[in-house]
Amino acid sequence: MGPGPADVHPRVLAALARPTIGHLDPAFVAMMDELKTLLRGAFRTDNALTMPVSAPGSAGMEICFVNLVEPGDTVVVCINGVFGTRMKENVERAGATAVVVEGTWGRAVDPEQVERTLAAHPEARLLAFVHAETSTGACSDAQALAEIARRHDCLTICDAVTSLGGSPLEVDAWGLDAVYSGSQKCLSCTPGLAPVTFSERALDKVRARTTKVNSWFLDLNLIMGYWSGEQKRSYHHTAPVNALYALHESLVMLAEEGIERAWARHAHHHQALRAGLEALGLELIVPEAERLPQLNAVAVPAGIDEAEVRARLLARYNLELGAGLGSLAGKVWRIGLMGHSSRPENILLCLGALGTELGALGHQTDTGAALAAARAVLGTD
Amino acid sequence: MGPGPADVHPRVLAALARPTIGHLDPAFVAMMDELKTLLRGAFRTDNALTMPVSAPGSAGMEICFVNLVEPGDTVVVCINGVFGTRMKENVERAGATAVVVEGTWGRAVDPEQVERTLAAHPEARLLAFVHAETSTGACSDAQALAEIARRHDCLTICDAVTSLGGSPLEVDAWGLDAVYSGSQKCLSCTPGLAPVTFSERALDKVRARTTKVNSWFLDLNLIMGYWSGEQKRSYHHTAPVNALYALHESLVMLAEEGIERAWARHAHHHQALRAGLEALGLELIVPEAERLPQLNAVAVPAGIDEAEVRARLLARYNLELGAGLGSLAGKVWRIGLMGHSSRPENILLCLGALGTELGALGHQTDTGAALAAARAVLGTD
Repeated sequence: MGPGPADVHPRVLAALARPTIGHLDPAFVAMMDELKTLLRGAFRTDNALTMPVSAPGSAGMEICFVNLVEPGDTVVVCINGVFGTRMKENVERAGATAVVVEGTWGRAVDPEQVERTLAAHPEARLLAFVHAETSTGACSDAQALAEIARRHDCLTICDAVTSLGGSPLEVDAWGLDAVYSGSQKCLSCTPGLAPVTFSERALDKVRARTTKVNSWFLDLNLIMGYWSGEQKRSYHHTAPVNALYALHESLVMLAEEGIERAWARHAHHHQALRAGLEALGLELIVPEAERLPQLNAVAVPAGIDEAEVRARLLARYNLELGAGLGSLAGKVWRIGLMGHSSRPENILLCLGALGTELGALGHQTDTGAALAAARAVLGTD
Repeated sequence: MGPGPADVHPRVLAALARPTIGHLDPAFVAMMDELKTLLRGAFRTDNALTMPVSAPGSAGMEICFVNLVEPGDTVVVCINGVFGTRMKENVERAGATAVVVEGTWGRAVDPEQVERTLAAHPEARLLAFVHAETSTGACSDAQALAEIARRHDCLTICDAVTSLGGSPLEVDAWGLDAVYSGSQKCLSCTPGLAPVTFSERALDKVRARTTKVNSWFLDLNLIMGYWSGEQKRSYHHTAPVNALYALHESLVMLAEEGIERAWARHAHHHQALRAGLEALGLELIVPEAERLPQLNAVAVPAGIDEAEVRARLLARYNLELGAGLGSLAGKVWRIGLMGHSSRPENILLCLGALGTELGALGHQTDTGAALAAARAVLGTD
C-alpha cells in the first residue's frame, strides 16, 4: 500500500510468465494491436499513437519532453510536488526555458495562477502539469488547465502516472495533448512500462521539428515505425515481450471491471480508509476537494518516528507504506489504494496495523473504532 | 533461434512471476546487491558501477553515449553492421562529431584501420565499436581495439549485447571502459533490461562533464544514487522489480554453469550447427576466424525466398529464425544459438526443418546427412 508498485493480481503475474516469443512474431504483433486498443479505452482517447514505452514512467515523462520541446522554447511548468520539479529538469535538459508556476505541496495547481503566467509569457507554446501528484496526493483540474492552455495556443503535457485507471481521466474530452503514465500504479501491472498517448496536434509538432530529438531510444519518429507501421513493422528495439503480456492482461482486467466502476471502487475505498484514519485521529494533508482517492498522504503525529512505524508495518504485517518525498520527507506517510491493492481487506489490515503500532509507540488511538468506521463505509463490499 | 530474445528457461519465467514488492524494500535492495555481484562475474570485471539499466539494450547504448559524450567532442565510431550505424546516430544526437571507420558487413573491425583513424584524429577521446555484431554474426577483437584506444588516450564504448554470456568477454583484462549488453541474448532472460558496466576512468569523465547529460532518465550521476548509494538508496525511478528477479535468476544459472563452460557450450554447439549447415550446402557469411558462435548468418541460396522459408519454419515447426537487417536484408538468415536456446535438440530441429523446407522449395539438400553431421559433432552431448 505504498505509492506503487501496487499489488499485482495473480492473473497478471501468470501472463508475465508466459513463454517469451519474438517481438516481431505475428502472434505478438496481434497482441500489441489489442493492447493499443485496450490502452485507448483506459485513457479515454481515440489517439492513434497510444502505446507503452519500453521503460518506466520516468521515461514516459522524458519521451513527452524530448519530442515536444526544442532548444530555445519556453515551457510553462506547474510545480506542486516532486514530479513537477522533475518536469522542469526535463525542460532544461532539452535546452529550453522553464517558466515555473510555483504551487503549494499538497494542493492542486491553481488555474488562475496558470492563466496569469501564460498571459505574461505569450512566447510559451507548451504547458506541463501533473494531474495526480504521487508525492502529495493532490489532484489538479486537468480539464480546466487544458482549456486555459488551448486559449493561449499551448499544447499540454500531462503526468497521469497515478491517475490512469484510478480516478477520472478523459484525454479526448479534456483535450490533453501528450499524456504519460506508469504500469505499476492503478493498472496494477508490474513496474517497467510507461503508457503514453499523443494527440494529432502533438504529433504535428513532433513532425515539424527543426532539430533532431536528442534521444535515439525515445525518438517518436522512429518508434512510430514499430508501433504503428501499417504494412510492415520496422525493427526499432527489442520490445519487453513478457512485460507487455502482463500489461495486456491488466488492461483486459480493467476492461472487464469497466473503467468507470474502477474509478468508483477507488473512490469508495478511499472513503472507507479516510473514515478509519479520522477515527484514529490522523489527518490527510490535502483539502477534501483536491484529494486523490488512490494516494492518501497522512500527516505523521507529533512525536512519532515515521520510519519506525513503516519498519514495524513491513516487518510485522508484511505491509508497505510510502515515505514522504522532498519537502514532505519525514512528515507524511503515503498510503496507496491503487488498482488491485484497493481492496477491503487491505484497508482493514492497514488501519489495524497503524492503530496498533501507534498505540504501542504511546500515541493514543482507538483502533477498534477505526476498524468499525471503515467497515461501516465498506458496507456489504 | 532468432537473434534474440532467446528461449527463456522455466526457472527464469518462474522468478519473473514472483509477487511484486517495493523497489525500496530491504529484501529487494539485498537482491539488487547480489545481482550486481553476479553481473560483475558475467562481465569479468570489478567495476563498482555494474548494473542493469531499466530499459532495453538500445537504452544501454544510449546511456553510454549520453554520459560520455559532450557537445563538440569527436568520437571515432567503427561501423561494420546495423549497430555501429546506430552508435553514429547516438554520437550526433549528443551534439558531437562522429568520425567513421567504415568496415565491411560480415567482417570484424580492422584494427589497422582504427589505428590510422585515431592517428589522424588526435582530438578524439572516445572509440566506439561493436564487439559482437548481431546483424552479421561477426566478432571483432575487442582486446586489440581497446589497446589501440588506450595508446591514443581514448576511452572505449563497447557493444556487448550479443557477446555477454555467449563468448569470451573480459572487461577488466581487456581494459574496456563502458560496456553495454541486453538481457535477452546469451543471458537468456526476458527482454527489457540492459546490463552495463563502467570503469573508474569512464566515471571520472562523467563526473568531469561541463554540461548536463541531456537525458534525466539516463543520467549516471542520478542513477548512481539508487544503484550504488552506500548509506541510503535515493529514489530515482521505480525499478522494474519483476524483470530484475528474472535477471537475477538467469545470472544465478549462469554462475551455476560457470561462464567459461557456457562459452565452451556455445562454441561446441556452433560447430555442430555449422557442420549440419555445410552438409546442407549452406554457407556462413563470416570468415571462420571472425565468427560468433551464438549468431550464425547464413547466405540464402539463389532462387529461394527467404521470408517464405522463415514463415514455414514458424508455422510448421514453431521455430523462429532471424531475417537479415540493413544491407543484408533478404540475403541471409540469422540463426541464434544463444543461452538456453543453445541446445542439441534445437540444432537438430533447425537443420531438419531447414533441410526439409528447402527441399520442398526445390533446392537440393540431403537433410539426413546434415543431421548426421551435427550429431557427430554433438557426440554424447
